[in-house]
Amino acid sequence: MDLLIKRDELVRSLGRVQGIVERRTTTPLLSSVLLQARAEGLRLVATDKAMTFIGDVAATVRTPGEIAIDAVNLYQTARVLADDVVSITLLENQRVEVRCGTAVFKLNGYPAAEFPVTPPLDQSKSLTVAMGELRRIVDQTLFAVAPDENRYGLNGAHVEDVATEAGPMLRMVSTDGNRLCWSQAPYQGELGIHRKMLLPRKGLDQVRKLLDGGDDVPVEIAFGERAALVSFPGVMVHMRLLEADFPDYRQVLPASYKRRALVDRDLLDAALRRVSIFAADSSHSMRFAFGEDSLVLTARKLDAGDSREEVAVDLVGEPITMGFNARFVADVVGAVSGRRLALELGDVLSPCIVRAPEDDRCLFVVMPVRLD
Amino acid sequence: MDLLIKRDELVRSLGRVQGIVERRTTTPLLSSVLLQARAEGLRLVATDKAMTFIGDVAATVRTPGEIAIDAVNLYQTARVLADDVVSITLLENQRVEVRCGTAVFKLNGYPAAEFPVTPPLDQSKSLTVAMGELRRIVDQTLFAVAPDENRYGLNGAHVEDVATEAGPMLRMVSTDGNRLCWSQAPYQGELGIHRKMLLPRKGLDQVRKLLDGGDDVPVEIAFGERAALVSFPGVMVHMRLLEADFPDYRQVLPASYKRRALVDRDLLDAALRRVSIFAADSSHSMRFAFGEDSLVLTARKLDAGDSREEVAVDLVGEPITMGFNARFVADVVGAVSGRRLALELGDVLSPCIVRAPEDDRCLFVVMPVRLD
Repeated sequence: MDLLIKRDELVRSLGRVQGIVERRTTTPLLSSVLLQARAEGLRLVATDKAMTFIGDVAATVRTPGEIAIDAVNLYQTARVLADDVVSITLLENQRVEVRCGTAVFKLNGYPAAEFPVTPPLDQSKSLTVAMGELRRIVDQTLFAVAPDENRYGLNGAHVEDVATEAGPMLRMVSTDGNRLCWSQAPYQGELGIHRKMLLPRKGLDQVRKLLDGGDDVPVEIAFGERAALVSFPGVMVHMRLLEADFPDYRQVLPASYKRRALVDRDLLDAALRRVSIFAADSSHSMRFAFGEDSLVLTARKLDAGDSREEVAVDLVGEPITMGFNARFVADVVGAVSGRRLALELGDVLSPCIVRAPEDDRCLFVVMPVRLD
Repeated sequence: MDLLIKRDELVRSLGRVQGIVERRTTTPLLSSVLLQARAEGLRLVATDKAMTFIGDVAATVRTPGEIAIDAVNLYQTARVLADDVVSITLLENQRVEVRCGTAVFKLNGYPAAEFPVTPPLDQSKSLTVAMGELRRIVDQTLFAVAPDENRYGLNGAHVEDVATEAGPMLRMVSTDGNRLCWSQAPYQGELGIHRKMLLPRKGLDQVRKLLDGGDDVPVEIAFGERAALVSFPGVMVHMRLLEADFPDYRQVLPASYKRRALVDRDLLDAALRRVSIFAADSSHSMRFAFGEDSLVLTARKLDAGDSREEVAVDLVGEPITMGFNARFVADVVGAVSGRRLALELGDVLSPCIVRAPEDDRCLFVVMPVRLD
């Protein structure tokens, strides 16, 4: 193996695998990146077994070949190099020479043959979504995926097909039991529906980081029985689907509301941030007093003090005072699109639906908390 | 107490005390800032008993008064406020109301009378140094002060008076046993010399952060028997001197050298950074092979790889190969002024003196390490 590559390209492509490889593992190959020098350029492969990243980057390959190298080591090496052309050469005994200017590094590698192979996808159907739209639906749902791996069914984002007047939509849904989000985007092609369509948190998180191209770049998604494949020019991500059932989320969506408050998103966002500093540490409990034309937010932290802020609202229905976890509301306010928000309320302990009145592509539910 | 103050001024002045107050203490007053509303404006006082910060900031005081408030709480509150005028009012029961726009905060305070009083300085002599010069000598010495509080005598920066052809100089010296730095700056006035002149690390670190004004701002320094007072417009810092003896550092400075290598500072800096990635974790040991016209740096990290880089040098004397802690050398290279460095060498285990050939205001010593 012998190739030439631009330092910045090498750094960028190695940066992409850092979140995928396992840092603490007794299997060196799971903390390695596989370099495959092919006629077309350099291919990088990294896997934690649950997901696999395959990235193609431009390189002048003088001798094809392949080798696995510790991904952190190679990334650190690439980052300290001068902005120039780098040569990567496979030596004897799985040693790899990285050379740039007068700097010479020799890194220990592992035989490429031992690198785990990703099984091919058992699926020929696939759909296409615009990258900007995929970014949006991931941003509007990922934050509410349960971080706890033991919460089976809630630790991933559920995907389904929705028929709308505007055509078929790919809908992504997430919930951690305290809030629920769904967001959808139009697609072309065919969504091969299976029994379970639950994308793991880490896989989705890594895919989101890779979605750094233009809004219109087409992203192809194919679902197999047990895995999904997300690909766009230069990048392929293969991830195992979660083996768990997502709850029937439609049951928790209230069919109607008793009260509806319209509020400016930026004003609510700023008020939440201010009052939050005294929202008690564990529950982030905040009092929301909805009046006819103002929403008064208050919080109290023992030994520290009280905070209070007022935001203009347009309320239809009776005034009501209820409690929310301020962080959960802030997450939703940060994710929703549009300048104005509609908060649809029931009684003191009923779920609150948050949506943008002008945008029916997303919907959020936040559960209230009991006030002391 | 009742006053009006610009939000940005409040944030800036509260930011200055955050490094001084104690975060984890059972004495709430040591994590508090004392607010003193006086006819001249607002004065902030914070102390950890070893050092005291006094800062004056412009404010419209409607009713004078004083109160102590948790410094972190008040800072967090000030930071979330809108960019506007803030009113601060003392209420009943040591409660303080902070108000800005529609946001209202009520913070718990402590009686000002209980706030620790800083003893006045027993000294009338003082000297003046330009802020830019003080910044330079602190930057060139602070990094080599021993971080360990138990290393009596090495855990502070020593100050002394040096007569030079260019007039009297204030010299600051630091060492942690592995490297030694001194740096000096011209002063006006009188340095009241005492037996022990050892400035504590935390005090000097905080003073450095406050030196954010123009190069020509005069900074006054007065040394008492047990304390020093550093002041410039709007700021006073009182710090207790350390009760320990600084070693006789002149003894470790070699009187002559056998070899002298001239090297470009930026090239050496970049080479050190590159080769360092494989300098073994604990000792950061790096091999320095000085040849007639090149310095070859090499390092090896078990299981990871080797690194090598070459830098052009101009060597007078016999070639020599020796070892250094790469981090210690990098600290010095980062601190020294000037584009070229002179490395004055003796034998394999003799101290190495680093200086800028064109600048006699500073000098650095790095001890070598044994190579395996």
